[in-house]
Amino acid sequence: MMEAIKKGDIRQASRLIRDIEDKLPSAKAKIKKLYPHTGHAFIIGITGAPGAGKSTITDALISALRQKQKRIGVLAVDPTSPFTGGAILGDRIRMQRHAEDEEVFVRSLATRGALGGLSQAVGEAIHVLDAMGKDVILVETVGIGQQEVDIINHAHCVLVVLVPGMGDDVQAMKAGIMEIADIFVINKADRGGSKQLQTELMGLINSTPLTEGGWRPPVVMVGNAHEAVAFNDKIEELVQKVEEYYTYLQQSGKLTERVYRKIQVEINDALRANILEPVIQKLKSSGRMQALVESVRNKEVDPYTAVEEIARCFLK
Amino acid sequence: MMEAIKKGDIRQASRLIRDIEDKLPSAKAKIKKLYPHTGHAFIIGITGAPGAGKSTITDALISALRQKQKRIGVLAVDPTSPFTGGAILGDRIRMQRHAEDEEVFVRSLATRGALGGLSQAVGEAIHVLDAMGKDVILVETVGIGQQEVDIINHAHCVLVVLVPGMGDDVQAMKAGIMEIADIFVINKADRGGSKQLQTELMGLINSTPLTEGGWRPPVVMVGNAHEAVAFNDKIEELVQKVEEYYTYLQQSGKLTERVYRKIQVEINDALRANILEPVIQKLKSSGRMQALVESVRNKEVDPYTAVEEIARCFLK
Repeated sequence: MMEAIKKGDIRQASRLIRDIEDKLPSAKAKIKKLYPHTGHAFIIGITGAPGAGKSTITDALISALRQKQKRIGVLAVDPTSPFTGGAILGDRIRMQRHAEDEEVFVRSLATRGALGGLSQAVGEAIHVLDAMGKDVILVETVGIGQQEVDIINHAHCVLVVLVPGMGDDVQAMKAGIMEIADIFVINKADRGGSKQLQTELMGLINSTPLTEGGWRPPVVMVGNAHEAVAFNDKIEELVQKVEEYYTYLQQSGKLTERVYRKIQVEINDALRANILEPVIQKLKSSGRMQALVESVRNKEVDPYTAVEEIARCFLK
Repeated sequence: MMEAIKKGDIRQASRLIRDIEDKLPSAKAKIKKLYPHTGHAFIIGITGAPGAGKSTITDALISALRQKQKRIGVLAVDPTSPFTGGAILGDRIRMQRHAEDEEVFVRSLATRGALGGLSQAVGEAIHVLDAMGKDVILVETVGIGQQEVDIINHAHCVLVVLVPGMGDDVQAMKAGIMEIADIFVINKADRGGSKQLQTELMGLINSTPLTEGGWRPPVVMVGNAHEAVAFNDKIEELVQKVEEYYTYLQQSGKLTERVYRKIQVEINDALRANILEPVIQKLKSSGRMQALVESVRNKEVDPYTAVEEIARCFLK
């Protein structure tokens, strides 16, 4: 199976990603074996609020990068939580037009349940695509909340997609958005309000202090996808910005920083899975959790004191 | 200080909430002492995507509930992460019109940093407002991602605010949204597309299986805040739905379930803070984290195997 995946076998890779989603222990063993064969792919995160048109951008990037003979992997991350809006049916169908192309491998990824499991699954699925020999991996996610910042930190380069009509929100996002965005995309830029959004965004970018030799995130204005020529030109511009960013990362030594950041996220995910989750599982299966909830409910103990005692029981 | 807070002292309460945000250990000791004096308040969560107008609804609810002589606490949660759009300046200023009213206490809450600290801070701040003797606590948050679901689960009743123009997204939200919403609010319902959103939402609500004696979330259509009379009527209707929901919770015994859910969230938050975070801190301060990142980077070990070893070191 490992050899097949390394040769780019889509069926074996799909199966392993499904096993990752289902959190099968066998999947972890396989990822460990694949790990030494990863590190080739450049990973681009694509994030933005629901309805920003992330999938349109992802789809267009696939086409543009294919013209450059890049082998592409795509992960459409679906947090299966409220307000995701990530992987809606129409977008998935649209991306299927690449399904005939053997060098494009699109998978959506969802996991239910607790405590950052999704971010870990994203990290592992990226390793699968990477080991398959993909040159570029696009990770599309809804960028809201700490968990999603974790997910996007699996990428080397982060595109933030915005749409007109959220001008006020740009103010609210300020620090957070500047922290994660390497390139901004204003989508549906033919709509009213796109100039205002651009102005606010540029103001925000220019008021953020730049370290020496630092990168100032460019803003690419992408119009209506139905006006194919103008749209494709803009996507071409976007690809060029990504290439410029890649060159910047390499020449500045920042690529190493990004790789470290990515590893840190993976370690944090793994710590959660290997330290916090087993404790919760043991508390639940032993009935201690239920007893704890009851005694907090009856005000016999406060939750903080109770958990401090539990921590003393479990930690060396 | 404890006595002052229990008497509703705003300065002491503000200071304690600030200490919670700053994660001062002294704050935890005080919350423990306040804990036995909590449990009076009914907690309403208000959530929705950026730009949905949550603060407008929150503000209107404050006025409507004040007319019923309720003492009100408000927490505007600001995840200080990208795309929050939660607590923008204009909204905060608007809510300040209640600042003269001693029975309304509005605080915004933000924490930076790792691993679910915000949800825990929300839980603790709710306890402060509760101990102050507030009858109703409104918790406003951007409802996207697992962390925000944790935050909203501190509430007994959850309002989900939607706006026209995200019709497609309703489909994408399906399971997640139905899981958390007790009452839907379609805000800016005078806009085009509100009927379509209502239809889609009703379809979703009616296709969700109802357990015996279960609650079918109502949909309240709220128009433009500038058309004061019609707007206030709708807010009145919303308050009535909240009251109906409260009656339902009490009569069905579901209130106890909600209280349990709330305690479970607090315990999970505390487990993270007392088990996972100390391990990460020790790894960092001892230099072991840095060494680990380096050896993963050099492919001497994969992150999963490395963390399994760490878990064996730290867990009994």
